[in-house]
Amino acid sequence: MKTDIEIAQSAKMEPIMDIAKKIGLEPEEVELYGNYKAKVSLKVWDRLKEKPDGKLILVTAINPTPAGEGKSTTTVGLGQGLQKINKKTIIALREPSLGPCMGVKGGAAGGGYSQVVPMEDINLHFTGDLHAITTAHNLLAAMLDNHIHQGNDLNIDPRRIIFKRVMDLNERALRNIVVGLGGRAQGVPREDGFDITVASEVMAILCLANDLMDLKERLGKIIVGYDYDKKPITAKDLKANGAMALLLKDAIKPNLVQTLENVPAFIHGGPFANIAHGCNSVSATKLGLKLADYTITEAGFGADLGAEKFFDIKCRFAKLKPDAVVIVATVRALKMHGGVKKDNLSEENVDALAKGFENLEKHIENVKKYNVPLIVAINNFPTDTQKEVKYIQERCEEMGVEVSQSEVWAKGGDGGTDLAEKLVNLVENKQSNFKVLYDENLSIKEKVTIIAKEVYGAKGVNFDKKAESNIKQLEKLGLDKMPICMAKTQYSLSDDPTLLGRPEGFEVTVREIKVSAGAGFLVALTGDVMTMPGLPKVPASTRMDIDEKGVITGLF
Amino acid sequence: MKTDIEIAQSAKMEPIMDIAKKIGLEPEEVELYGNYKAKVSLKVWDRLKEKPDGKLILVTAINPTPAGEGKSTTTVGLGQGLQKINKKTIIALREPSLGPCMGVKGGAAGGGYSQVVPMEDINLHFTGDLHAITTAHNLLAAMLDNHIHQGNDLNIDPRRIIFKRVMDLNERALRNIVVGLGGRAQGVPREDGFDITVASEVMAILCLANDLMDLKERLGKIIVGYDYDKKPITAKDLKANGAMALLLKDAIKPNLVQTLENVPAFIHGGPFANIAHGCNSVSATKLGLKLADYTITEAGFGADLGAEKFFDIKCRFAKLKPDAVVIVATVRALKMHGGVKKDNLSEENVDALAKGFENLEKHIENVKKYNVPLIVAINNFPTDTQKEVKYIQERCEEMGVEVSQSEVWAKGGDGGTDLAEKLVNLVENKQSNFKVLYDENLSIKEKVTIIAKEVYGAKGVNFDKKAESNIKQLEKLGLDKMPICMAKTQYSLSDDPTLLGRPEGFEVTVREIKVSAGAGFLVALTGDVMTMPGLPKVPASTRMDIDEKGVITGLF
Repeated sequence: MKTDIEIAQSAKMEPIMDIAKKIGLEPEEVELYGNYKAKVSLKVWDRLKEKPDGKLILVTAINPTPAGEGKSTTTVGLGQGLQKINKKTIIALREPSLGPCMGVKGGAAGGGYSQVVPMEDINLHFTGDLHAITTAHNLLAAMLDNHIHQGNDLNIDPRRIIFKRVMDLNERALRNIVVGLGGRAQGVPREDGFDITVASEVMAILCLANDLMDLKERLGKIIVGYDYDKKPITAKDLKANGAMALLLKDAIKPNLVQTLENVPAFIHGGPFANIAHGCNSVSATKLGLKLADYTITEAGFGADLGAEKFFDIKCRFAKLKPDAVVIVATVRALKMHGGVKKDNLSEENVDALAKGFENLEKHIENVKKYNVPLIVAINNFPTDTQKEVKYIQERCEEMGVEVSQSEVWAKGGDGGTDLAEKLVNLVENKQSNFKVLYDENLSIKEKVTIIAKEVYGAKGVNFDKKAESNIKQLEKLGLDKMPICMAKTQYSLSDDPTLLGRPEGFEVTVREIKVSAGAGFLVALTGDVMTMPGLPKVPASTRMDIDEKGVITGLF
Repeated sequence: MKTDIEIAQSAKMEPIMDIAKKIGLEPEEVELYGNYKAKVSLKVWDRLKEKPDGKLILVTAINPTPAGEGKSTTTVGLGQGLQKINKKTIIALREPSLGPCMGVKGGAAGGGYSQVVPMEDINLHFTGDLHAITTAHNLLAAMLDNHIHQGNDLNIDPRRIIFKRVMDLNERALRNIVVGLGGRAQGVPREDGFDITVASEVMAILCLANDLMDLKERLGKIIVGYDYDKKPITAKDLKANGAMALLLKDAIKPNLVQTLENVPAFIHGGPFANIAHGCNSVSATKLGLKLADYTITEAGFGADLGAEKFFDIKCRFAKLKPDAVVIVATVRALKMHGGVKKDNLSEENVDALAKGFENLEKHIENVKKYNVPLIVAINNFPTDTQKEVKYIQERCEEMGVEVSQSEVWAKGGDGGTDLAEKLVNLVENKQSNFKVLYDENLSIKEKVTIIAKEVYGAKGVNFDKKAESNIKQLEKLGLDKMPICMAKTQYSLSDDPTLLGRPEGFEVTVREIKVSAGAGFLVALTGDVMTMPGLPKVPASTRMDIDEKGVITGLF
């Protein structure tokens, strides 16, 4: 059996200019990065802005388990399936980070016969967006420390700086550092740290900005810390937002690539799905809607985090109206939610499946709260038994939800035509009446409580002392009327990663509320949230290589 | 009068594919980055390797002063002048760093009517080479700290780590830091720091590597530190060099752009000229030689650092034979070397010029030691008087050296035809018998002493206690038989930045000897060498902006 990278390397790619023409882009709107990658110029909006939008489909999933769900693979495969049934389709995905690529995962661009290509380039530097974000972010950090060193006219309190530095690598040793050591000429000593680039507020802003001027405006609003009177200091106060926008002038343009079956794919922006909203850029999604009949996008982690933020943050800000949702699950993962250990997943176990199904059931109920039609995609494994498949089918039917068996990993688009047909049928026959879950003008506590009760199924929310004091300060500063971005474990509907299936009777504890004033949301932190991963004992990078012909091994 | 960026923005660029065709590249050998930037595939070597080389010209300068010399401007202008007299010419320059661009300087790509374009792109992320180098470097650093954290099988002594992290910004606060704080799960605490990316050994390696496999081999030899038995630990020991080479697979390909007058220019690689060798990549220079009759390149700082390292490091490793040298000087800078203050440079002062001329005289003598024909280019300013110009002319004539008055800043190629004609005449009538200055198999002390006496004019060299102990250790490890890379102030021929003109009777003090085993040279440090600049009180970045049409201001 071929590995993902071997399949990707034998892909028959079309020149990206041909792909661009296929979706109606003019050659002068396309900026080539080699023959198989391109950026789309923002000029394109002058021509397209009056065009009606196509359909917007979100692919989300049950809570992830070590068994794997295949959400990206299903997204790509569904796009290929839609092309097989002659629907003009564009896929919109997030850009991968080099951190996990060099750490545990290797590459991240779908799998099997449902991948985006050129896989190596997408996983390595791609078109440089993450590097541009890293640089813009760190320029602001450098200007901040320089301001304090050069006399601190803004009266910034070095103990109240909240803006850390970033790097697009898994860098445990940089989580907690002390900077500015070495004496008077070497800066002002203070505690600091690095987050991974995808956790940068600059990344969240790039993904939510409507255009270059909106980007610059939002960058200016980033709060880097507070002065000795506890007043916020912004990037604009440091006169950094012009240079930051300049550094992001190309990063804001959507990147165009293709799938193994030459379906156009925008891969653009990749914010963390915990402390940020976990969706690809608004600009790529909107461009997809103008250029295709179906735009298929995905959101990070399970539906409790990914879909909720897609709806309540991305769709709210960008005024998007999703037409349908696909929830991806696997028999294996549902059995894990039902209590089966990873080693025993190949054995038929309908009892465990019945118990684990509750996780899927809750996500189905949740999506219905947003008034968006939905369908379930079961990403098939050879070990799934007929009985197990039938069980899911019946339970979903009882809930009025259709199910498709997807074989896109093994068969590409041919394995996704059933899902594609059922989806088209759903979209054509069921009206979406999308609405957000809460009014952003409610109090912070009300908003958090609505999400915790309605989406997670919690019986209530505890706010720690620190969170209480954060809330008071944010209300005082008038920074409380924004949507909430929940930072919660992805493994459970609750804030306890060990509670699988559909936990009940639990309370969610909010430790801290942070503001991302440029991105425009408040981050509610529950439990420990990792914003800088570490490398494992044997990093994936130790197995990577390139030979004299440029053939790459170890990315997978 | 137009600013540099205004001149650059009104340039009539040709599509880079047309420029590529003009120098005989096949379309499939060119990888576009937009319409005006490209990388050249390394496949090109299969086709070109047997082709005879064109002429190689080095542009160097007197010791820099605040008056400015215009070395890059002269390099670009000479290329344009050669094109005016119908010589097939390629310019090979270094890539600028974002640090100084955001700090004091704004952009760096020549000046006036002798610039390389697209100026904004070249000065910002360009084709991502510096970001790739930053990432490859920091991946090694992350793998090093992770190795220690995960059990330290290699027995690395955290107190003997010599490999720092890098960032392509001016980051005073990151010069001296402590990493790994926060407890057991957050890594092993130790002292660390960041250098600017152009100071990375990875940058030096990229610039000296002959091909991808040579690159990987050299990366593997980087010494990151020592174990508890004082044995060196390399990147290869950490199994990092495969992934690092992978991250540099595109960065190693030369970048093609053009000048304001559409002369092809390779801008590729930009190592520091103090702790590294300060020349653009070997691969770009060699490719220029295959594709053009004249390849014009430059080296960092004055000839005592730039030209010496170009000859003794770059030409030695790459087996290049330079055909001629251009030494750039200005009347104003020579008067500063003669003791005139910056505010009085507009007044005629032949006495000061006579004294300051000694700086140029010494550089002329030095270049002659390498047996390479040379010419002096005076970069004209409106304040230069006839008497002053004539004085330089006469003194050079006495030394058997021709002088050209260059007006390339104000007139572009038309201002460089005299220099171009005289250069062609020199190359066609005077044979170069290039030889390096010293045998790399001499002892470290002998090599350093030859450079200090022959090139700087010192009467001797003092080796500090630390340097003595470094030398003993390097000899024991068999790492002493490499060329020397002198890290010395650029402002003086001596190691004291205040001694202008042609100092005599001084001794050079070597504080420390470091090894760059991957790059293949030993760094001899004299005085304080800055490897991470800081931002000034008002950084250039505070004045940068971009408007809704994408027009950039503040880069200059």
